[in-house]
Amino acid sequence: MVPDAPDPREPQARRRVVIERVEPQIDCGRFPIKRVVGDWVLVKADIFADGHDSLGAALQHWDPAGQLSEVPMELVNNDRWMGRFQVQQLGRHKYRLEAWVDPFTTWRRGLAKKVEAGQDVAIDLKIGAQLIRQAGARASSADAALLARWAARLEGSPGGESEALIALALSDRLVQMMDAYPDRRFATASDKLEVAVDPARARCSAWYEMFPRSCSAGPGKQGTFRDCAERLPYVASMGFDVLYLPPIHPIGVTDRKGRNNNPVAGPDDVGSPWAIGSRLGGHKDIEPQLGTLEDFHDLLGKCREHGLDLAVDIAFQCSPDHPYATSHPEWFQQRPDGSIQYAENPPKKYQDIYPLNFASDRWAALWDELKSVVLFWAGQGVRIFRVDNPHTKPFAFWEWLLAEIKRDYPDAIFLSEAFTRPKVMYRLAKLGFTHSYTYFAWRSRKQELIEYLTELTTTELREFFRPHFWPNTPDILTQEMQAGGRPTFMARLVLAATLSANYGIYGPAFELCENRALVPGKEEYLDAEKYQIRQWNLAAPNSLKPLIARVNQARREHPALQKDENLTFHPIDNEYLIAYSKSTEDSSDMVLVVVNLDPSWKQSGWTSLSLPELGLQPEQTYRVRDLLTDAEYQWQGARNYVELDPHLIPAHIFHVRR
Amino acid sequence: MVPDAPDPREPQARRRVVIERVEPQIDCGRFPIKRVVGDWVLVKADIFADGHDSLGAALQHWDPAGQLSEVPMELVNNDRWMGRFQVQQLGRHKYRLEAWVDPFTTWRRGLAKKVEAGQDVAIDLKIGAQLIRQAGARASSADAALLARWAARLEGSPGGESEALIALALSDRLVQMMDAYPDRRFATASDKLEVAVDPARARCSAWYEMFPRSCSAGPGKQGTFRDCAERLPYVASMGFDVLYLPPIHPIGVTDRKGRNNNPVAGPDDVGSPWAIGSRLGGHKDIEPQLGTLEDFHDLLGKCREHGLDLAVDIAFQCSPDHPYATSHPEWFQQRPDGSIQYAENPPKKYQDIYPLNFASDRWAALWDELKSVVLFWAGQGVRIFRVDNPHTKPFAFWEWLLAEIKRDYPDAIFLSEAFTRPKVMYRLAKLGFTHSYTYFAWRSRKQELIEYLTELTTTELREFFRPHFWPNTPDILTQEMQAGGRPTFMARLVLAATLSANYGIYGPAFELCENRALVPGKEEYLDAEKYQIRQWNLAAPNSLKPLIARVNQARREHPALQKDENLTFHPIDNEYLIAYSKSTEDSSDMVLVVVNLDPSWKQSGWTSLSLPELGLQPEQTYRVRDLLTDAEYQWQGARNYVELDPHLIPAHIFHVRR
Repeated sequence: MVPDAPDPREPQARRRVVIERVEPQIDCGRFPIKRVVGDWVLVKADIFADGHDSLGAALQHWDPAGQLSEVPMELVNNDRWMGRFQVQQLGRHKYRLEAWVDPFTTWRRGLAKKVEAGQDVAIDLKIGAQLIRQAGARASSADAALLARWAARLEGSPGGESEALIALALSDRLVQMMDAYPDRRFATASDKLEVAVDPARARCSAWYEMFPRSCSAGPGKQGTFRDCAERLPYVASMGFDVLYLPPIHPIGVTDRKGRNNNPVAGPDDVGSPWAIGSRLGGHKDIEPQLGTLEDFHDLLGKCREHGLDLAVDIAFQCSPDHPYATSHPEWFQQRPDGSIQYAENPPKKYQDIYPLNFASDRWAALWDELKSVVLFWAGQGVRIFRVDNPHTKPFAFWEWLLAEIKRDYPDAIFLSEAFTRPKVMYRLAKLGFTHSYTYFAWRSRKQELIEYLTELTTTELREFFRPHFWPNTPDILTQEMQAGGRPTFMARLVLAATLSANYGIYGPAFELCENRALVPGKEEYLDAEKYQIRQWNLAAPNSLKPLIARVNQARREHPALQKDENLTFHPIDNEYLIAYSKSTEDSSDMVLVVVNLDPSWKQSGWTSLSLPELGLQPEQTYRVRDLLTDAEYQWQGARNYVELDPHLIPAHIFHVRR
Repeated sequence: MVPDAPDPREPQARRRVVIERVEPQIDCGRFPIKRVVGDWVLVKADIFADGHDSLGAALQHWDPAGQLSEVPMELVNNDRWMGRFQVQQLGRHKYRLEAWVDPFTTWRRGLAKKVEAGQDVAIDLKIGAQLIRQAGARASSADAALLARWAARLEGSPGGESEALIALALSDRLVQMMDAYPDRRFATASDKLEVAVDPARARCSAWYEMFPRSCSAGPGKQGTFRDCAERLPYVASMGFDVLYLPPIHPIGVTDRKGRNNNPVAGPDDVGSPWAIGSRLGGHKDIEPQLGTLEDFHDLLGKCREHGLDLAVDIAFQCSPDHPYATSHPEWFQQRPDGSIQYAENPPKKYQDIYPLNFASDRWAALWDELKSVVLFWAGQGVRIFRVDNPHTKPFAFWEWLLAEIKRDYPDAIFLSEAFTRPKVMYRLAKLGFTHSYTYFAWRSRKQELIEYLTELTTTELREFFRPHFWPNTPDILTQEMQAGGRPTFMARLVLAATLSANYGIYGPAFELCENRALVPGKEEYLDAEKYQIRQWNLAAPNSLKPLIARVNQARREHPALQKDENLTFHPIDNEYLIAYSKSTEDSSDMVLVVVNLDPSWKQSGWTSLSLPELGLQPEQTYRVRDLLTDAEYQWQGARNYVELDPHLIPAHIFHVRR
């Protein structure tokens, strides 16, 4: 036998501690959880060993620069441990757990019991001395000297031990010193997990979508970036954080769609901005009617002056006139007759759109080119991207692309416009999209809203899927809004803005309550801006602008509204009334919202508030102030009366003050 | 640029399909699921790709010899797919999923819609021909010729397509042929998962535990293996499958415990069989008073004749007299005074037991020796091992040991006696223990039983934790049984034997309703067999032998009772009555059990049976026959009257016949 040959069962055989069920964790660590700068990550795990020995456990955290820090984990109960760390830098952080058997604490616990039972502990003190000497070998030289002195004292114990020696053995000073030098040779380490840390804006934002070509002050004229800049005070006065523009690139001519999605365009029709590319350029070019790249820079700068971030659209598809169609036909699907395959959803044909073929043999050059598109706009100063239909491009493409962009621009934000099946939406979120459009537009009844929000905010989705609530978009005018009109617009605004920390509206259609559908029962607008220039009367007396400003002000002033996972629904005895609250972790800010979902009739009811969630005692009186109207009420306990008239304002956003 | 240099993003970039949430799966595949020979493994997974293309997916299964078989997966709904395979051989099987984009089915679906809409499909037929030609390149030569012929026909399509060509393109024959040759170059494969397949006995067994030294026919005499063999007809007549003997090794003398756990043994005291080892030998030796190894072989053979498997005890600990203590002191913890550390639970001391030190520097030789102990008994023909206190030995040891033994003896069964915290129990089950003792003995109220069984049979525990229910053991005489006496013994028997497919009793204490405690309020028996020889009057008129025989007969004759995961509880309007059913997957066998948990009073109530679980229609009449008494009743619908007198038989085990 070869002496000291390492046993093949090493090192696993010596690791007595098990670490199981580490949370949070997405798909066995395949994907990172998400946080924003300044957040805490609370980590829980089952940690245990055979037998009854005491254990030690630590939470290790590496920041994006690879800097390691460590905090102790604490036992909660039933072998469940807990610890937390804060993420301060943008980018990918890592964390894992280490745990080990702690013979000193085991020994100390046994010693205390023996002493209490009046047993002779002379040999126990000698055993303790051995453990202290071993720790000394791991200690700094100053501490080693002290540990050696203590060990010598315990070893020198005469047969009948003295109280002083026991006091030393059980002293807090010794515990602290021993805790500083645990024997971690046989520690068990969990696999490393990741946290993707985004800018604070990712946690909370209010978006305003606007077609720049409809911004002209003069009727019938094509709006420009300059007109757009003139509109900024209007947008900023409503309290928005992000201005999002549909594609600003040259628009195709071949098979251009006319007004109201007419398959034949008239000579003056402007076409859909999503039919990208013409002889004037492609995804890195600007439609000349909107202005120049310099005008775009000006607009970006003016946005910043108004506290607005500018978001652009990333729509990876081409009109037949896109330069790629001639310079890189290999990036498209070829048909046997030599033509390029247009978009289809049989039997429907979309001949004005050529989908890119991400799976062609020349995929690599295509992917690199598309990356250069995003980098181009990031290079202009854009940091927020709304991505059109990501679910029709390969997952592997997005995972690669988003990682590439974030390596250079860790503050980049990507909103996924994937109106598709849930698992596809969720996968895109896991792959790195910062935000995701949701099914909110089609969740209108109380129970539907409660179920959907419960799924979003209480399941593992909360770790990686950041919902973005939009009551309308240029493509989506729900039947509920068509039928309900202004009262529904108000209710949906309050729901979107208070249920979700990230929300947006497509304006001015929204604030002007545009609810005329092209075909009743469908969701397309009549005279949709997608296909034509619209003039909007921003000064219309029924505009929701003042209400929107109030709602966004409430969001800015109340940190409780700036998170998603702090949502609680409260029972209220009327099926048209929905009640929910959000509060900060320290309960310093609490907001209670009640919305009337019935656009036609005044509704009233009695709440059954969950008082602990609001930090309130039973029967306690407290004041609630409506942030929309400044009306103030004195309430008591769980049961309070609410009445909401949809023709005035169908919602309360109460600030709750104890 | 180097032409055709492989892109570092390959092959991941070309894999469009995602496979997520594969079930069953334990701890991200770290541990196998468990099955027995002949079982099916139902596999589910989320499978999806970008866009709207059709997908193909297969379930691959490798038997322990590495033989691969494959079956198609089928889409259930919402991107969830399903497939199953059968396990026919003992040992470790593997499985995984493969999924790919299926352009032919996508094309065929689109073609059908276009044809229905009356569109021109000339180019579509040419596209299909390309796909068929590509499949031909993957096909056998006969099939390739046929595919080439079909492709040529579709290619030859004139501008206006003929009905015959469309019929060919949409024909089932073509579908079948194309399904046989999918393009799986860019298929996505899930990680391989494992199934540990045990012998059928692992699914269902009734155990009888008995001290061989108490088997003597003559009073006051030490029983032997030969006496034990005389007892086999008695055990077999009750319908048991497994006879389990406490340790049969030489018993230590030093600090031997006397009757009733007296710290001082008298000269005639026989000691605890778990204090293993004396100058007469250790774990591979037999206590001479029980007989010789040849006697043991005889007993094994006679057990087989009676249809019984023999289980022995594996208790890895030593008496101070064990040969290891002198030959291998390095396998124990040394104390500073040179003595060996005895077992402690401060302030309690167990000086008659030396725990082995699995974490010593000489662990490797110790582990190898302990493995040789199990191999020794397996070599004698033993295949079932009851393992004492596995939770006080390292997890890594058990994982290694069980794998080593099962490699040579894949039919070996190990019962884990870990009465400890749940996560530790569950980890041992994951590591390879076939069966596990449970908390059943302390779950006595209706709601407790329902909650515990629901956890065991409906969560992921069912995939790896096989419960073994024991109403009593030599260490456990619950207060419920002390207080309830014979009615409680009957009720607990029926509960154990019908709630769990694996159960056991410690006899003859059980059938003779031994309920005298050493100290009221504790669980130790008065005159416990652990420390002394007992004579039992097997012919006592109040013996539960006939009832036990009836219960075990019901278990043997009713496949519904031979599984765990087919359990359903049914409401019944009396808190002392509990009702549940089990049925086979095909509903050919259905058993309904009702137990009165009150040992004192007759209880009656009305059932609210969940009829679909019993395969019954509302208001249907059906017959139920009590397998314990042969009484037969006509029942109707969900609501039926039950009355049970604990002084007669406190349970019905109904066979339900439609």
